[in-house]
Amino acid sequence: MHNKGLLIVISGPSGAGKGTIIKELIKKGKFWLSVSATTRAPRNGEIDGKSYYFLTREQFEERLRLNDFLEHAEVYGNFYGTPKSNVMERIDNGEDVILEIDIQGALKVKEAYPEGVFIFILPPSMEELKKRIIKRGSETTESLMTRFKSAYKEINYVSKYNYAVTNDTVEVAAEKIESILVAERCRVDRLKDHILDSKEGIIHEQLYD
Amino acid sequence: MHNKGLLIVISGPSGAGKGTIIKELIKKGKFWLSVSATTRAPRNGEIDGKSYYFLTREQFEERLRLNDFLEHAEVYGNFYGTPKSNVMERIDNGEDVILEIDIQGALKVKEAYPEGVFIFILPPSMEELKKRIIKRGSETTESLMTRFKSAYKEINYVSKYNYAVTNDTVEVAAEKIESILVAERCRVDRLKDHILDSKEGIIHEQLYD
Repeated sequence: MHNKGLLIVISGPSGAGKGTIIKELIKKGKFWLSVSATTRAPRNGEIDGKSYYFLTREQFEERLRLNDFLEHAEVYGNFYGTPKSNVMERIDNGEDVILEIDIQGALKVKEAYPEGVFIFILPPSMEELKKRIIKRGSETTESLMTRFKSAYKEINYVSKYNYAVTNDTVEVAAEKIESILVAERCRVDRLKDHILDSKEGIIHEQLYD
Repeated sequence: MHNKGLLIVISGPSGAGKGTIIKELIKKGKFWLSVSATTRAPRNGEIDGKSYYFLTREQFEERLRLNDFLEHAEVYGNFYGTPKSNVMERIDNGEDVILEIDIQGALKVKEAYPEGVFIFILPPSMEELKKRIIKRGSETTESLMTRFKSAYKEINYVSKYNYAVTNDTVEVAAEKIESILVAERCRVDRLKDHILDSKEGIIHEQLYD
């Protein structure tokens, strides 16, 4: 018997630095990054199975009928979703899976799979978040303000998560997440049956030898 | 505003190696080790305030009346207890307090202070536990068997704890506990008010500057 892998859900407002932290985690540890499925057309340079699984609308709807998404959403007429069987096979096999996802998606995943580890990435400060959003693109002051206010509102969802990690520096944030994963693997809720099973196994050999 | 310290309760069957792991933790980090109070007479070399707080029966009963114990028990006619105000002052001050305690005591502390971090130390195997119990003293085979069986039964209490850490090696076990503490400090349950408070503080400065 081996332990299941962890589903690590990394979420938070845009501009908090989720992507960079995940790159750092993958550089240092053995994780499998979940790839989303979408019905939108591939853009230049995007690779099927790496950037996204590119599906036709029919393929997507067939998977929906089979209940094979942990969550899905329609954005501007395109479907996006997290394929369930891909993720669950890895987890059952003892592998840890990282899922980078927006807040709405994360909350749906939590309903479908509450055993996941839900981590909210916080920007070091609102000022820093603003800087990062500005750096991202040439947006108008108005659209910038909209994005910033939306990020501000999103931070309230932190209360739905298990952990909050402030992205002061990428290295420290990644280390904190690694510690969270060590801790989660020690959680009695996850280990109980395993401990008592192995105790049974050992006791019969040892007590009467 | 600062965060409270953690009450770290280290418990588990005798022979699992709690004491050695705690020494390793204290060597590496800033912890305050809780000292128990007792009415039993000091033994050779024991120092008041370090080994125990040695109290008269009257002093102990006075503290009991003041509800100043996180837990207490009577063993062979002597009282033992964990002084509450000593521990709580440190925690309120942001310091982390380690409490090494037997399983019955730990369960009482959990009732009094469920925010504590309850860690159960498991021996690497039942065989190893047996070896350690044998190494401890010149016991008869019979009393050894009694102690071993009692340790075996105690392992069932692991389900009441938050975390289980197997003491394969002292260094690895101590590192796991350090990770657990990093993770606990990131738990949203502990941070929620703090995050939302600082957000409020920052947002008013930043949004309209």
